Amino acid sequence: MKRTELPRAEALCARYLDKKQPVLAAVSGGADSMCLLYFLREQGYDVSCAHFNHQLRGAEAARDENFVRAWCEKEGIPFYPGTGDVRAHARATGKTEEEAGRDLRYAFLRETAQMLGAQIALAHHLDDNAETVLLNLVRGTDLRGLCGMRPRQGDIVRPFLGQTREELVTYARAHNIPHVEDHTNADPNAAARNYLRLEILPRLRELNPRAPQHIAATARSLTVLDDALEQAAEAALSHAKAQDGGISLSLNCFLAADEVVQPRILLHLADALGLGRKDIGRKQLDAICALAQRGGSAERRYTLPQGALVRIADGSLTMAFSPAALPKAVLVENVPLPWGNFELTLLHKPDGEGISLRAPEDGEIITVAPCDLNARLMLQGANGARSVKRLCVDRKLSLTERDALPALYVGGQLAAVWRLGTDVTFLPEGGDAACFVRIIPR
Amino acid sequence: MKRTELPRAEALCARYLDKKQPVLAAVSGGADSMCLLYFLREQGYDVSCAHFNHQLRGAEAARDENFVRAWCEKEGIPFYPGTGDVRAHARATGKTEEEAGRDLRYAFLRETAQMLGAQIALAHHLDDNAETVLLNLVRGTDLRGLCGMRPRQGDIVRPFLGQTREELVTYARAHNIPHVEDHTNADPNAAARNYLRLEILPRLRELNPRAPQHIAATARSLTVLDDALEQAAEAALSHAKAQDGGISLSLNCFLAADEVVQPRILLHLADALGLGRKDIGRKQLDAICALAQRGGSAERRYTLPQGALVRIADGSLTMAFSPAALPKAVLVENVPLPWGNFELTLLHKPDGEGISLRAPEDGEIITVAPCDLNARLMLQGANGARSVKRLCVDRKLSLTERDALPALYVGGQLAAVWRLGTDVTFLPEGGDAACFVRIIPR
Repeated sequence: MKRTELPRAEALCARYLDKKQPVLAAVSGGADSMCLLYFLREQGYDVSCAHFNHQLRGAEAARDENFVRAWCEKEGIPFYPGTGDVRAHARATGKTEEEAGRDLRYAFLRETAQMLGAQIALAHHLDDNAETVLLNLVRGTDLRGLCGMRPRQGDIVRPFLGQTREELVTYARAHNIPHVEDHTNADPNAAARNYLRLEILPRLRELNPRAPQHIAATARSLTVLDDALEQAAEAALSHAKAQDGGISLSLNCFLAADEVVQPRILLHLADALGLGRKDIGRKQLDAICALAQRGGSAERRYTLPQGALVRIADGSLTMAFSPAALPKAVLVENVPLPWGNFELTLLHKPDGEGISLRAPEDGEIITVAPCDLNARLMLQGANGARSVKRLCVDRKLSLTERDALPALYVGGQLAAVWRLGTDVTFLPEGGDAACFVRIIPR
Repeated sequence: MKRTELPRAEALCARYLDKKQPVLAAVSGGADSMCLLYFLREQGYDVSCAHFNHQLRGAEAARDENFVRAWCEKEGIPFYPGTGDVRAHARATGKTEEEAGRDLRYAFLRETAQMLGAQIALAHHLDDNAETVLLNLVRGTDLRGLCGMRPRQGDIVRPFLGQTREELVTYARAHNIPHVEDHTNADPNAAARNYLRLEILPRLRELNPRAPQHIAATARSLTVLDDALEQAAEAALSHAKAQDGGISLSLNCFLAADEVVQPRILLHLADALGLGRKDIGRKQLDAICALAQRGGSAERRYTLPQGALVRIADGSLTMAFSPAALPKAVLVENVPLPWGNFELTLLHKPDGEGISLRAPEDGEIITVAPCDLNARLMLQGANGARSVKRLCVDRKLSLTERDALPALYVGGQLAAVWRLGTDVTFLPEGGDAACFVRIIPR
């Protein structure tokens, strides 16, 4: 084999794949991944083959698995088959079959690679990348989506990302590498890709024969930009800390970042909180940035999907799950309950900080929930009952603090609010409390 | 007319067009520009119509001009026709017909607008913008090209950039706005656009019915990013100054800019020098940035097209026309000649700084050119002739200084090099020089 047959693939291997470590190639049996398997072995890698059967194409799927297995046996390449019920997983998780398939396939790949101590290689090539960029573009995307796939993404390497489909076809022909055709049209993404490949890209090539190369080159050059913005966002985020039951960043630090970096900081905060990025769009990011840039000392709030809340107050920008989203939960004796910023445990006698209550009567359960601002508490020695809202104002509690306070209900009635006090009706009789809710910050 | 018929066009007008100033609409006679003319008048603007005849389509061009003129007369809208020989201009300038046509059309528009004290409005719409982005993408582009057209670009406003072609067609129908069809396929760009519009975009809409909207939205969001990077580059460039016959920026200032901003600073330096941006590609920009990032005190150089040179030395990054590109030029008595960093004037007697030479003999002309490093000068009192290179080293002249030195030739022979000295053969005889070349820095 001439050493310059697939020069860009060799360069990507040299850069991203360690010769001393085994490589696990994900192989469907199609031309691209069969080429990858062959190429990696020719390049001298200790290569194994992972094949995942999606069980979506019946006999054809079995044919593909058998084809890849037989070829690997003949060539003496270790073969690792995997499978999973993609349809069932999609049903169970509410994901599309495409997403569910990817989940299961990647989990299988990672497990197998871990077992082998191997690096993972995928066969995506330049035309795949151009298709990805175009697909993102017509479906709506931002800079990130225009960067397409990367030659290395986490634990995954794509050695063929700089080679065209045509170059791989030529390589397969020159080396008599066999393959099977995948006739899947089951998932909409495959259909869209087929349409792009068969109907649209040939027409773009009419406009410019090197259209896929140009699109991939643009993607590559935008990657540099994207990485730089990402680094700037991460640098700012290194100053964030857990606070108020969420993640918090000084407003100065946020505003010091370039305005094109600020939306990315918000996305990173969402990541840190465990929110999905998909639920936060351009419009919301812009609105939060505008709020942050607006001066003044008054607290500003913005509600995100999934019950998350952005609060700008006291020189900080905090993203937290909204208190409104904090659940109503039953306290079970001696079982610690994580709730918002606190851990609550129902005990028989006082132990540390907490709230003492009269012993519950038969059938009364004790629950924790966010405090209802309009509910009233009659505190010992007070001149009548007062609303929770009023008590918070008296105690100079911020909106942030107020929303995070656990309220205890006994038999459905408000018995106490942490830091505000216990309603006289629910105070323990005598000196010893027969019921204590320990409350410790998390 | 309902006020919300073309809401995004109204918003762009409100933002970018001054109601107190007249508007000159560029009108071809096609549906889009006829709508623009109608719409601007409906919106209450003092609108005039500019029509440019490219003389590329014979009878059809005349038909279009007459159609627009007649409609304007009927509607009482001032009509300003313009024309130019696009083919001749293309031949004369070596530009494509497309570029030549745009040059002449825009010159006509600007002249007419200036005469009227008017703002200029063009009819480009959302689909045009999506086409522009795609065309740039398949031809190879960077972030700037992906931003497409802007609603305001310099002295030009595009009120329809947020509306789709379909919305304009509906508007035209609702208001009985007539138009002519342009059958031009003369220039390759029109052909490419037609192909995109008729063959490719409908297929992208198959993938996603709102593909043009998504592409335009991506372009809009990238514009924010592009503007931010541009601002950062301009901020760095405000510290640049003219130096060494070029434009110079402190290396610290250059390196302090983000790495995604650095290539843009180079493009701005090229602008300031009068180089075309088109001649500087990604590869060259990256190479120069890498050179700048490399430490050490040795001078580093990179040659750009059009005879320009980037020099990194003495804590500065300088972009200048390459001395190698400095012309050989004849000095004519009393006519100042700008040459590199200097202005040279041949005089009869010394006046200020310069070089005195013996009077030229009949037929001898005096020329200036870059100094040939290997040529030799015999200086008065020196122990033999020495090479220009050696003399520069002796005098501790930097490479930069050396390349910028004017050398004087008399009758084709090296007579003197500024700052090095005059060859004894060419020294004036007696006290008064009959020939003096005044050299003043520019």
